[in-house]
Amino acid sequence: MRKIVLASTSTLFGQEYLAYLKPVMQQLFTGIKEIVFIPYARPGGISHDEYTGRAAEAFGAIGIGVKGLHTFEDPAQALLHAEGFFTGGGNTFLLVKQLHELGLMEALNAEVEKGKPYLGTSAGSNIGGVNMQTTNDMPIVYPPSFQTMGLVPFNLNPHYLDPVPGTQHMGETRETRIREFHTQSNIPVVGLREGGWIAVNGTEITLQGGLSARIFKAGHAPYELESGGNLALL
Amino acid sequence: MRKIVLASTSTLFGQEYLAYLKPVMQQLFTGIKEIVFIPYARPGGISHDEYTGRAAEAFGAIGIGVKGLHTFEDPAQALLHAEGFFTGGGNTFLLVKQLHELGLMEALNAEVEKGKPYLGTSAGSNIGGVNMQTTNDMPIVYPPSFQTMGLVPFNLNPHYLDPVPGTQHMGETRETRIREFHTQSNIPVVGLREGGWIAVNGTEITLQGGLSARIFKAGHAPYELESGGNLALL
Repeated sequence: MRKIVLASTSTLFGQEYLAYLKPVMQQLFTGIKEIVFIPYARPGGISHDEYTGRAAEAFGAIGIGVKGLHTFEDPAQALLHAEGFFTGGGNTFLLVKQLHELGLMEALNAEVEKGKPYLGTSAGSNIGGVNMQTTNDMPIVYPPSFQTMGLVPFNLNPHYLDPVPGTQHMGETRETRIREFHTQSNIPVVGLREGGWIAVNGTEITLQGGLSARIFKAGHAPYELESGGNLALL
Repeated sequence: MRKIVLASTSTLFGQEYLAYLKPVMQQLFTGIKEIVFIPYARPGGISHDEYTGRAAEAFGAIGIGVKGLHTFEDPAQALLHAEGFFTGGGNTFLLVKQLHELGLMEALNAEVEKGKPYLGTSAGSNIGGVNMQTTNDMPIVYPPSFQTMGLVPFNLNPHYLDPVPGTQHMGETRETRIREFHTQSNIPVVGLREGGWIAVNGTEITLQGGLSARIFKAGHAPYELESGGNLALL
């Protein structure tokens, strides 16, 4: 049975890394001693080792060991032997480029579809969508493809931000950007506010975290889905 | 002699389309009766015709005719015969994809290098940089390349936004995103605030518009360049 959590953000304002997700992590990774961490998104350009250290600290607090995928000579083999996965946030273009170039996107997908638990935050959640084309990140590198795992039948927009009333800034709002995406694609988009996450249990896909999410479908007005709501049939 | 204006935005808050740029347009396009408008960025998904109509209205007010590049059977020939160019804003990925797929990126570059005046706003300014990898736009389509014209020896970040003091949002600031770009590239980046523009006259490249810009160079702390400052030797 598939067990997946795709969170908008790793960190809530004023909190420790992954703190608000600890109960979710404990449930998702029940019975698991060690996970593989995928550090390729490198937030702020930090090293893979540093980033893995951060994840190890947070998982250590719930008694789970962490190995960085970058430390394995054969990362595809490492995915095959792993018990579970966490992909951290950062730059989605970097993450997707590296996963495709190392031939790992489909390998990771296959392991998660087998039922190995997967946690993603931010960029790590984006790759659970059909493609990365609703990321907020800058295209700092050129990936060979924008396709991602498609663990859910829609795209995500993590760190979703509502339009700021009365702003004088003329740059596009998040809603405008997603509407532009829908001139090119019919894939639904879940605007996932910080503090919210998507939980997949087998074929069930629900919104969690106590916040509503903004749902965008091509040709329809966007609407709010309350926490607990069904995302399986968007 | 090269004559180029790359503006952060087409429109200032509460003003008409291109209103604040009219004196600049009059000077840039002196003696020119008709320009070719490049509408491919399609802001908000509007049609090429609608978008060209907007540009025609603004240029009509200063006595200059506008033809949309999309109306020509052979757009490369249209660039060759044009007197000058304006590329409007919208989605940079759409714009760059279409220019590359139609074989127009280098053709446009060649005409501008010959001395035909070029105005860009937002996405239309991004393509004046070395590449589009510091755009704020969503990757709603997959372009065959991120390379752009390189009319200036740096990249632009239009609609540049300073970090918001006291925000509780955990998404990356613009400065963080540009710093991440500099883990991958040594190309300098000009963070161009709304109301500012870059003026190229021959080999002179200066900042204009009365606002400072934020300059980002790999391995250096970002700094402010005052309006009037030299951008030729970043």
